[in-house]
Formats: sequence, structure tokens, C-alpha cells
Amino acid sequence: MLGPGDDAAVVTVPDGRVVATTDLLVDGRHFRRDWSTPYDVGRKAAAQNLADVAAMGAVPTALLVGLAAPPDLPAFWAERFADGLRDECDLVGAGVVGGDVVRSDVLLIAATALGDLEGRPPVTRAGARAGDVVAFAGRLGWAAAGLATLSKGFRSPRAVVDGHRRPVPPYPAGPDAARAGATSMVDVSDGLVADLGHVATASGVRIEIRRAAFEIPDALAQVGSALGVDPLNWILNGGEDHALVATFASSAAVPVGWHIIGTVVAADGDGDVLVDEEPYSAGGFDHFA
Amino acid sequence: MLGPGDDAAVVTVPDGRVVATTDLLVDGRHFRRDWSTPYDVGRKAAAQNLADVAAMGAVPTALLVGLAAPPDLPAFWAERFADGLRDECDLVGAGVVGGDVVRSDVLLIAATALGDLEGRPPVTRAGARAGDVVAFAGRLGWAAAGLATLSKGFRSPRAVVDGHRRPVPPYPAGPDAARAGATSMVDVSDGLVADLGHVATASGVRIEIRRAAFEIPDALAQVGSALGVDPLNWILNGGEDHALVATFASSAAVPVGWHIIGTVVAADGDGDVLVDEEPYSAGGFDHFA
Repeated sequence: MLGPGDDAAVVTVPDGRVVATTDLLVDGRHFRRDWSTPYDVGRKAAAQNLADVAAMGAVPTALLVGLAAPPDLPAFWAERFADGLRDECDLVGAGVVGGDVVRSDVLLIAATALGDLEGRPPVTRAGARAGDVVAFAGRLGWAAAGLATLSKGFRSPRAVVDGHRRPVPPYPAGPDAARAGATSMVDVSDGLVADLGHVATASGVRIEIRRAAFEIPDALAQVGSALGVDPLNWILNGGEDHALVATFASSAAVPVGWHIIGTVVAADGDGDVLVDEEPYSAGGFDHFA
Repeated sequence: MLGPGDDAAVVTVPDGRVVATTDLLVDGRHFRRDWSTPYDVGRKAAAQNLADVAAMGAVPTALLVGLAAPPDLPAFWAERFADGLRDECDLVGAGVVGGDVVRSDVLLIAATALGDLEGRPPVTRAGARAGDVVAFAGRLGWAAAGLATLSKGFRSPRAVVDGHRRPVPPYPAGPDAARAGATSMVDVSDGLVADLGHVATASGVRIEIRRAAFEIPDALAQVGSALGVDPLNWILNGGEDHALVATFASSAAVPVGWHIIGTVVAADGDGDVLVDEEPYSAGGFDHFA
């Protein structure tokens, strides 16, 4: 592996195929400097790209990062941001192998993650089949609950607020699902129902999930009660937790850490998502809207 | 190859290693919308990343592009930009395999290029050895001359102005140089002397080039005469043409399309660059400064 400092990095990809994904984060839109530390932003920028790699069933190997920074950005901001990138990458054994820094009036981060399929076919959004079960791994609703909390001017409970600042993607669950024969998989970035909608559309199926299948974490129940919000809304509709959701043949053993929440049903027209047998108005997660 | 539309793309990398590089372009800093069409900006964004891949001796295979766009950006701008990306990628047989679009107050492009080494070692900046010859491939000075022309309010000569709008990197010259045993190589993005300085420093050598080794293209001579600028300044100091400059053992046959301009000399301290045996104040190319 040849890292930063030359025209380009060289990353080992034993598989002969490389998984690649890129995402932009804009100050004031995808993060706020008064709500998140630079370290948080680094963790989040890395996490949302590494999670996309895991959602293909691959193991993240490398991250390239572009930083567009206003002239008055303090040096410590960039340093702590880089610390966050590195620590998140360390969780999966990936390296920060390249980057670019330019001046810009707006603080913006561009991250590209690479990953290795370890010889397996990629798990796309298009393989869900009628009769499959639907399952998720990771956390749902925490980022939305954290954002709701911050938006009301509160800085606690810390665990919930940190849910917005730093997602906790279940990285190993992606390759685990691929090994277990997952028929489709997606990273929950727009919201569970919205992202299941992407799977339903790509696969030409309908997906039905059940509210009763979700355990409500105590912290979300408490914050929901305090803010007058049903925490299930955050779980079904909140984005940016970067949980993974996948479908498995009903005969397959769903791996440890995956929770079954519904089933895949044959559909004639455009794939849609039912919650407790009713259409659910997802709308997706619109960041700071 | 699995393209856009899923969590990530999958790119074939027969070599088992992938070359990866990322760059940001900011509106008003790396391009101006009153000087360049969206098609030009797409060509340039792709070119400067694909050239970095070629500078490692690799063949570009794929491009991922993030576009941060203000809400009032016309739809045709993004469409013509995408056309430019695709046409530049077509020159080398690469595909635009992924991307991301977000809202931002500033128009910004993040591009990441991937490439294949075809079984060869990467050609870095660090391998130049005393006794090597120095050679370049591609065009030098055109982007700087074009920028100088536009900055004076002129829109012609078209060939020179287009030199700023759309670089013409000599893509195949990168793998050609690698096959011919190039000991070091770099993409000229900061300016010839500045980028040779990077090679000299990384390799721990001194590099000596000769003004007489450069042919001055007629178009640059004419524009230089009109603007009162020695066109050799653009050739030695201008950036953004994305020529390639490399070193070869003196016993090696320099490939077709490469022009010898100097030699590598042993040095004690930090590597530096002499032009006609004198230190040259490069300063590098500062875009619109």
C-alpha cells in the first residue's frame, strides 16, 4: 500500500474487483460546527462511506478525503478532523491513503471509500425475492433522536446526542450477511422505510415490516416522551444511523446481530413498503430540514 | 463493473492493486463559470484526476464524482458537466461509475479516479537517480497562457484560451514511460519546475534542465509577444496542463512522445531544480491568484 504524498495511492485489492463509493458532506447541511466537534465530523465522514462499502458485503480497505476549507478554519480543526477519520478507519482496518485540501468559502468534505469483496459477489439492492425475510443490523433512530434533541436546544442525554454526531455502523454485519447469502442489502442513510423502498423498487417486490418487531431502546423512549414524539417514527423514518438492512431466503440462518422485521412479497407494479399492512409515508430523512 | 445506483460501484482491477487519487475543484478558484462552459469543467475535472493515475504509470479505469451545487444551478449545467466527464473518460476507456449530488452555497466538484497498474510497479516521485535523463510528454504552458489571455479580457486565440479550459493530458505516455522503465514520474499540475522540485526532494537529488530544450509553440510565442510575457515563463512555471514529467536511466530508450529536457545530478541536501545552471524561483502555479 502506497499512501499519501504521490500523485495517487496504491491500494491492495486481492479480489481483483474493488468496491468504490463517494459522498459529500457540507457544513451547515450535513453537520454543524456548533453541534459537532471536528473529531465527530471526521468520524461521521468516514463512517458514512465505510458503511456504503459494508452494504455491498465488502470489507473497507481505504479512504480518500478531500477537504475544502475556508481560510479562517483553525489548524486544530483539520487536525482533529483527521484524527476522527483515522480512528473510524481503524475500526475496520482501513487506511486514509490520499486526499486533497483546497480553499473554499464553504467547509466541505468529500470522502471516497474502497473495499474488498473477498471473492464474493456484491450484494446489491436488486436481489430481494418474494418469500425472503427482511432484517436489520446496527442502530435505528438514534441519529434522528439526537438531531431532534439538539434542534430543541438540548445537549443531553449524551448517548442520544452522540447518535447524531457519530453513527455507529455495524461494519462486520455487511460481510457476515453476504457470507450468509443475503439476497439484497442497503445502508440506511435516508431512513429505514425510504431505503427499503429503494430495495423494493430495484428488486420489483413489495416489502412488509411490522412495528412490533422493533425494540424501543430506553434512551429513545425517554427522549421521545420528553419531546412528545413517538420514537418509532425515528426508527422507521430517521436517517444517518447507517444501519444495514438486508433480505435473506427464509431458509437461510440470519447471522448473529441481525433482527428480522418483515418479509418480501410479490408485487405487480412499483415496489412499495407497508408497515403493519398499511402504506407508510416515509418521505425520507432530510438532514436539517 | 457495477455502476451508479447502488451503495457503491464495483470496478474490475485485474492487477490486484488499484491506483486511487482524489481532487477538489472549487468554482471561482479552479474554474470560472464565465470563462468555462460546464462541458469544459467536466472535461477538466476528469482530466486532472485521470492524469494523476497516468502519472503512476497506470491506466485509468473509473471515475467517481461528487457535485455540490447551489440550488439555482441550471439543470443543463449539470447535464453538460456530466457530458464533459464522460467524454474525457471515453478517451482512456474509463467509466463514470458513481457519484453524489448535494446542495451547497458554493459549486464544488470532487473527483476520484481509479486505475490499473497492469502488473507493473507504480512509478513514484522518489526513484530519480543521479545520471538519469529528465523528459516530459504532453503540453506545457498552454493553460497558463490561456489564463493570462482570459485575465486580460481576451477570448482568443481560441487554441490558447482552450488550453486553460481543457487540459490535454498525454494519458498513454504514463504507461509507456512505466514500460520503458521510468525511474520517477509526476503530473505537472503546480508547474514544471515546482513539480520537478517535488521529484528532486522525494528522490534526494538535484534536477538540471535547459531552456534550449524547449520548443516554443507558435501560438504561445504570439500570445507572449502580445501580452509582453516570455512564453518560457509559462512553460517552466505554468500549472494545470497535466503534462507528465519523468526520469529515465540514461541507457534507456525514451519512448515516442517524450522530450528530453535535462539530467538528474547527485545532491547533498534538499533536492532543488536548476534552470541553465541557475536556481529558478518557481513559486508554483497559484490558479487565479
